Amino acid sequence: MPQPSHPIITLTTDFGIKDWYVAAMKGVIFKICPDCIIIDISHEVPKFNILAGAFLIYTAAISFPKDTIHVGVIDPGVGTQREPIVIKTNHGLFVGPNNGLFSLLLRFYKLLQCHVIENRSFMLDNVSFTFHGRDIFAPAAAHLARGRHIEDVGPALSKIKLLENISPVFSKDCISGIVLYIDSFGNVITNIHESDIKKLNLNYGDKILLEIADKKLSIPFYPTFAYVQQGDFIALIGGSGFLEVDANLTSASEKLKLKIGDAIKIRKLE
Amino acid sequence: MPQPSHPIITLTTDFGIKDWYVAAMKGVIFKICPDCIIIDISHEVPKFNILAGAFLIYTAAISFPKDTIHVGVIDPGVGTQREPIVIKTNHGLFVGPNNGLFSLLLRFYKLLQCHVIENRSFMLDNVSFTFHGRDIFAPAAAHLARGRHIEDVGPALSKIKLLENISPVFSKDCISGIVLYIDSFGNVITNIHESDIKKLNLNYGDKILLEIADKKLSIPFYPTFAYVQQGDFIALIGGSGFLEVDANLTSASEKLKLKIGDAIKIRKLE
Amino acid sequence: MPQPSHPIITLTTDFGIKDWYVAAMKGVIFKICPDCIIIDISHEVPKFNILAGAFLIYTAAISFPKDTIHVGVIDPGVGTQREPIVIKTNHGLFVGPNNGLFSLLLRFYKLLQCHVIENRSFMLDNVSFTFHGRDIFAPAAAHLARGRHIEDVGPALSKIKLLENISPVFSKDCISGIVLYIDSFGNVITNIHESDIKKLNLNYGDKILLEIADKKLSIPFYPTFAYVQQGDFIALIGGSGFLEVDANLTSASEKLKLKIGDAIKIRKLE
Repeated sequence: MPQPSHPIITLTTDFGIKDWYVAAMKGVIFKICPDCIIIDISHEVPKFNILAGAFLIYTAAISFPKDTIHVGVIDPGVGTQREPIVIKTNHGLFVGPNNGLFSLLLRFYKLLQCHVIENRSFMLDNVSFTFHGRDIFAPAAAHLARGRHIEDVGPALSKIKLLENISPVFSKDCISGIVLYIDSFGNVITNIHESDIKKLNLNYGDKILLEIADKKLSIPFYPTFAYVQQGDFIALIGGSGFLEVDANLTSASEKLKLKIGDAIKIRKLE
Repeated sequence: MPQPSHPIITLTTDFGIKDWYVAAMKGVIFKICPDCIIIDISHEVPKFNILAGAFLIYTAAISFPKDTIHVGVIDPGVGTQREPIVIKTNHGLFVGPNNGLFSLLLRFYKLLQCHVIENRSFMLDNVSFTFHGRDIFAPAAAHLARGRHIEDVGPALSKIKLLENISPVFSKDCISGIVLYIDSFGNVITNIHESDIKKLNLNYGDKILLEIADKKLSIPFYPTFAYVQQGDFIALIGGSGFLEVDANLTSASEKLKLKIGDAIKIRKLE
Repeated sequence: MPQPSHPIITLTTDFGIKDWYVAAMKGVIFKICPDCIIIDISHEVPKFNILAGAFLIYTAAISFPKDTIHVGVIDPGVGTQREPIVIKTNHGLFVGPNNGLFSLLLRFYKLLQCHVIENRSFMLDNVSFTFHGRDIFAPAAAHLARGRHIEDVGPALSKIKLLENISPVFSKDCISGIVLYIDSFGNVITNIHESDIKKLNLNYGDKILLEIADKKLSIPFYPTFAYVQQGDFIALIGGSGFLEVDANLTSASEKLKLKIGDAIKIRKLE
């Protein structure tokens, strides 16, 4: 594979696309690193939803070159005590607030370094109280893209904030997990990974028992949507590598009234 | 005109912009072809609506350089029998599923070649069942952008799937067509092209009789919105080259209760 | 700071992101200026809302390099008498209709030149009646990005259209202004700038009296959201430099039933 000719910076935020916030971050990045490529992952992360942001940052990063710099700003505590950090992994650099946003990727990527951004030369001259995306995270990423070292952003940090329940729990024949994300098709993406599923010895055509708040459903496990009738539920390993509960050409999340963060349990039906 | 210094790849999907799907396609493309430029046409094609996708891909392509590679993924049958294809025309390359998505552009551009993507070296190493946008279409486009040949993707295909009713039908003084698209202003864009309209001998100021399901309306034909009062209907040739039924500063589609795919008829009122 | 290696063109429109309009503008720009970088500011400006567009163009431009070319197309009068213009300021070039869209930036940036786009060589060969974004503004910006001179677009213009009420009015201890913009968090951004606020001698912890149509509210002035409880109102200087009325983790605009353009008054509570 060829090497990228330009450094790549990705952006994941809950800023929405109608406002000027994302563009301001891009302007700042281009002023510091004019030859970089900026790619939007999503700016429609549900507002203040750190778990959804953690899912999107991890999952999109899988497909990017390993020297990509990923900036995440879902930051309800902006201007308060949470540290601005840079994490170096074997699968890219990650820049954002230390509030759990990097929890999921740390399940799968190897942590190499973590530093708090304190060096003012990685920030804009004036740092506002409410817009660290523009004033701290964007310029830090742009300086790193230009080749400055992660050690220079500030002191090492050992305590990276992790979200509770980010990993599923196994008990005998049952896996307890949560809803990580609901996509725009209404697919319900759980935190139970393909690698976790192996322990259940599931084969295509088997059924799983899905337990949610107030109901239990028997759902067939197949490779893709077209194995079931329109509107019927299906369990499958989605493109993200996680177990999804979907409904063919229909929104599973609406039918199940599930939302991000909800608890779920699955077991194999014999 | 100068030649593009970088290959251009455009993306049209129904994936939405809030999820990670589009970004994953971009990561894959940059890994294979780091110096390309990726342009989003739309990711808000109504879910599973192949007709709307066919309109957007054709219409946006008009304005792009003729060596652009256009990727379209509106693909309700992902993982089933429809072939992944590449179409070469006199107005660009088109990559996507063989499900009708390229119907409209084949009315206007000259078909030069069509091949089925079967060569595994144009795909990711692991092809999932549900995300061919990332695993087949994005890498195929990126390899083509790097200069690999369309003949190498796989065998030639002669039967390109065409949507029914994609072309209007003429009978005496009447043209029968469909609604191709409804834009975010509520403008109703038909499949009756500027070149079809010539047969009606319409002049600005003339009126057309529009027949839809349950009603007939007399609507004036003018060059632009400002010729009618706010809220009044107007028929005009839109920027896409198709006849549109619009309402000045108002949504015509809401007033007419029309949706994509609906049948319409027009004739000139004498 | 390094110099940009590529000219930057930004786009701000009310075209929405689901349609083909924005992509058509980009295709046109790349045909004329293949090595430029195109950045979206927003395409979700509320339809026909020139005031919101004026806010977004000014505010995003602050963060961009000073040789950036900003294209704005919120243009309800397309095809009528308003002139297509280019404005040169000490903070970038601005291309769009002469309908008030550049009112706000002229409060803050120094006007150097303004010319009407009349030279056909800056436009597409065929100029439609309804899509000047593609046919006039995009190609004019691309030609300017390639180095052609603003004087060559057409004759100088002295009367740039300004929106009424774009600047706040001071009377004794009171500032009368308007709502410039409401962002996707529901933050209410006024046209009262940080520099205007100085005249009120406000300190953090002080309260302001906010008068809107039918009510008066006492609201504390603080640097950032976290100073108040969830749901409580706060007045702060936002990242844009303007006074905002926000509510912590809640939509202030919904609670106050305010919309863009509404009149507001503030004074300091002693």
